Parts: sequence; structure tokens; C-alpha cells
Amino acid sequence: MKALSSYKVGLCQFVVREGKQQNLDRARESIETAVRRGAKLVVLPEMFNCPYDTAFFADYAEGVPAGPSCRMLSEAAGDFKVHIVGGSLPERQGQRVYNTSVVFNPQGRLIARHRKIHLFDVSLKTVRMRESDVLSPGSLVTVFPTPFGSMGLLVCYDARFPELFRLMLKKGIAAVVMPAAFSRETGSSHWHALVRARAMDNQIYMLACSPARGPSAGYQAYGHSLVADPWGRILAEAGEREGVVIAELEKARLTDVRSRLPLLAHRRTDLYDVIAKRKE
Amino acid sequence: MKALSSYKVGLCQFVVREGKQQNLDRARESIETAVRRGAKLVVLPEMFNCPYDTAFFADYAEGVPAGPSCRMLSEAAGDFKVHIVGGSLPERQGQRVYNTSVVFNPQGRLIARHRKIHLFDVSLKTVRMRESDVLSPGSLVTVFPTPFGSMGLLVCYDARFPELFRLMLKKGIAAVVMPAAFSRETGSSHWHALVRARAMDNQIYMLACSPARGPSAGYQAYGHSLVADPWGRILAEAGEREGVVIAELEKARLTDVRSRLPLLAHRRTDLYDVIAKRKE
Repeated sequence: MKALSSYKVGLCQFVVREGKQQNLDRARESIETAVRRGAKLVVLPEMFNCPYDTAFFADYAEGVPAGPSCRMLSEAAGDFKVHIVGGSLPERQGQRVYNTSVVFNPQGRLIARHRKIHLFDVSLKTVRMRESDVLSPGSLVTVFPTPFGSMGLLVCYDARFPELFRLMLKKGIAAVVMPAAFSRETGSSHWHALVRARAMDNQIYMLACSPARGPSAGYQAYGHSLVADPWGRILAEAGEREGVVIAELEKARLTDVRSRLPLLAHRRTDLYDVIAKRKE
Repeated sequence: MKALSSYKVGLCQFVVREGKQQNLDRARESIETAVRRGAKLVVLPEMFNCPYDTAFFADYAEGVPAGPSCRMLSEAAGDFKVHIVGGSLPERQGQRVYNTSVVFNPQGRLIARHRKIHLFDVSLKTVRMRESDVLSPGSLVTVFPTPFGSMGLLVCYDARFPELFRLMLKKGIAAVVMPAAFSRETGSSHWHALVRARAMDNQIYMLACSPARGPSAGYQAYGHSLVADPWGRILAEAGEREGVVIAELEKARLTDVRSRLPLLAHRRTDLYDVIAKRKE
């Protein structure tokens, strides 16, 4: 199948609250809004069904794809005939809980699952978080097919590590989908520069989707969901409130940037390389 | 010797014109200004003695450290008792010409030489450049000692490649010095995000030094020489005109950022690594 020359995507930025069913309803509504505005691939934020707080992850955890969150995502993907990247959710497998992103195709089938590889254990000025207290880390690089081309998938803090992008790049990606929940502290300092730099360095589209800032939540998400093009230009961006971000990815833009500024061809792989240490 | 807890650095942003001696005089003046303002390490821009144009490189090329430009730098370093990173200059060795950065210590001795590894061959909207028509590429990763700790050294387009920073990081660097001459086109799109992202990702100080915008030059440099801290915050920055940027590097800041947001410890080197392919 020839890849599409353009592809409309939508990022759903909404407030995540206590109450799983309420969050699933809100996510489905937001997906529908994105679809009505023409999105063929719809992205949800990190922990879209559960407050971003280690106290909640085990309680909200469910099977993938057997649980109610994946059921909703599968049905929505099938009903609307779109790809859905189900941000992330706490996944239970045996005694373990993962921070897991899932992708459903327009037939409602699960086509990718990414378990957050890098757990967020930090002591910032306003944020103390130890995901590793309750979560287990994943260990696989995840790439999935779309009609626009292959896309990489990672969760939030994974994006801090440039090596991961290089491993995805070897699989021929056109974009990386990044469900995230940056805090206002790291978001205001790092969000735009980080997302734009990953787009520029790897000459890919970046689809970075955050929850909206919750007025009364303990953890204040930064918002500012955005799509950056392979030149690092921001095509569309939300503020900190709820909304849907729509952008059109263009194959010609990818080709143009990569030929005018041939960063990928100029890597000196005779001198260095990024290697995967575990066979997948 | 115990590393200094703070260290003042100066970046010299001036217009580079035709006429090597004129540029050397201007560089020496600018170094003196930085020293008077307290800088212990002074950085010059890429091609500080030669217009940034492939038509000039062979004519301006000279031996390192035998030529007049290194002589000026060595004398200035000795006279002012400071480290000087001599931006870059066209270096002749046999039939070859390199885009080379040199570092002199306060005794006037050459302690490092970095030959630009990644040559700038691009066809942008406003800039067509093929450094490889006249220049040969280097092949070594360069790190040099300072009283504040080790620093990496690269030239302009080298900074586009995150792998190079990871190789430097393995040598325990506290900062990277980046003489550069971004164009107004790539500068306005990429300069700040790129330099800040490298600082954030590697949790290092970035010292990025550009020529000033030359009102009548063929190649219009972007300017905006800046120092970013390990959190990616810009400590001091020039506009597009001539000036000296002064900033104080703090060991405590480095330690604080690296412990609060332990990116370097969180790399999953069990899953991936950046490897050097050539033994140095």
C-alpha cells in the first residue's frame, strides 16, 4: 500500500479526574470531536483514565487488551474508522503494573503496546515522584504502521533519552507519538525545546499530547499539546485548558526537510552508532 | 587539583570581515574586553579570522599551531592568563584544509585541537553551502581540561548530532563549547531549541558563540551567542550585533540538576548505548 501524502491527526487534551468511567466517557467525547474535525489518527494523553499519582495506579490498573479502557478504545476506533493511540493507562499483568500506551487500528484491533521504559523518579522543586515505587519498566522499542508511514511510540519521560529516537529512526519512522504529562515546572522549562529538538534532530513529526491542567488536581499538568513538523516548527498547539489540536502531516514536508538539510545522511556512522543491546 | 566551584566565561561576538589581520586584531580586542569583565575562559566564533564562505577557506588557511592566528591566540592566553577557545579557523595540513578549533591554556600552550567532524553541505532556502568542496572532515571526539572540569569541543554543525554529546559525556564533561556560525535561516528556526536541548539532555553548560551579523556580508550569521545552564536556562545572550556575553558557571548547579532530575543515571544502558567505532 502506498503511503498517504497527507494525514490529519488530532490530539485530545482534557482534564483527567478521579473516576475511571468518567475519564473514559470524556476520552470518547474528545475522540469524537477530533474525528469530526477530520483526524484519521487520534492521540490521548498519558494516564488518560487515571489521575497521574502513584497512589492511584494499582487501583486503576487493568488488563491489556481485556480491560474496560481498551474495550472503549477498540470500539471507538472501529466505530469512527480511525487509528487511536490510547495515551497511556496503568496495565496490570500478574503482580506487575506498567505505564502502557496502546494503539488500535480502524478495525478495532490492538496493533501496538508500549510499556514506558524510563520511569520518572525525580525530586524537583514542586514535584516529587517515584513511579518505580509502583510501576515496572518496559524494555522494548515500539514502532507501529499507519497509512502515513511508520510511527514510533513512547511515553513522556522516555522522550528525554535521544538514544530511543535513534533506535526508532532505524525502523524508518515518519513521526513519534508522545503521550505525556509534564508538570508545570518541567513543562514551562523544557516542553517546547525538547519536543521541537526531537523533531529537528530526527526530522520527524512529533505528536505530543498532554492532559489539560486540572484546576484542583494534586499534580498540575502543563498542557500545551502540540504537533511539530520535521523542521521543528509548531503546526498547532493547545494552551493549558481542554481542547483538541488538529494538524496535517505532509509527506512532501518530510522529504523536503530531509533533502535540504540532510542530517540523517550526514550522521558519521563510521565514527559512532546507537546500538540496541537486547534483541527484540 | 580540586575543580573550581564557579568559573566565569566570556563569548566574543564580533563581525568577521575580509582581511585576516583585521580579524585577528578585532578578536584580540574582544578577548581583552571579556578578560576585563572577569572571564577566565574566552570563546571566539567559528571562522573568526576568515569570512564564512568556501571561496576564502583555502586562501586564509594556515598551520596549527605555527600560523599567525594561533600565535595571536597563544600570546593573548599567556598575556591575560586565561583559557582561550579559538573559535575555529581554516587549518592547512599538506593538501588538506580543515575547519579547526584550538584551545590555549593560560601558559599559552595548545591543549586541544578539534577538526569539524560533520561538514555543512546543505541547500536551504537562503543558504547553499558545500563545505566538503574545500574542507576535509575530522574524525576525533575532543575534550579538554579546565579548572572548572572537562569540556567538550565541537564546531557548529557537529552540534546537530546528539551521539557526539553522548560520547563526550562518557569522558565526564561539565560543559560543551560550541563555536558556530548558524545562518539567519537555521538560526531563527533552530538555534535556541538546539542549544537548550543539548544542555538539558546532557545536563551540561553550553557555550555557543557566533559571529555578529555582518551588515554587508554574503553569509548572514545569526548571532545570539549564549550560555545555557544544565537545566536549559539561558544565563546570558547577545542579540545579532557585536558584544561580549559573560556568564558564571556553577558546580552546585550542575550537581543540583543532575540529582533532582537524574537523567544521566536513568539512561537504560542495559537496552541501548552510543558506541565509538574508531579507537582514539
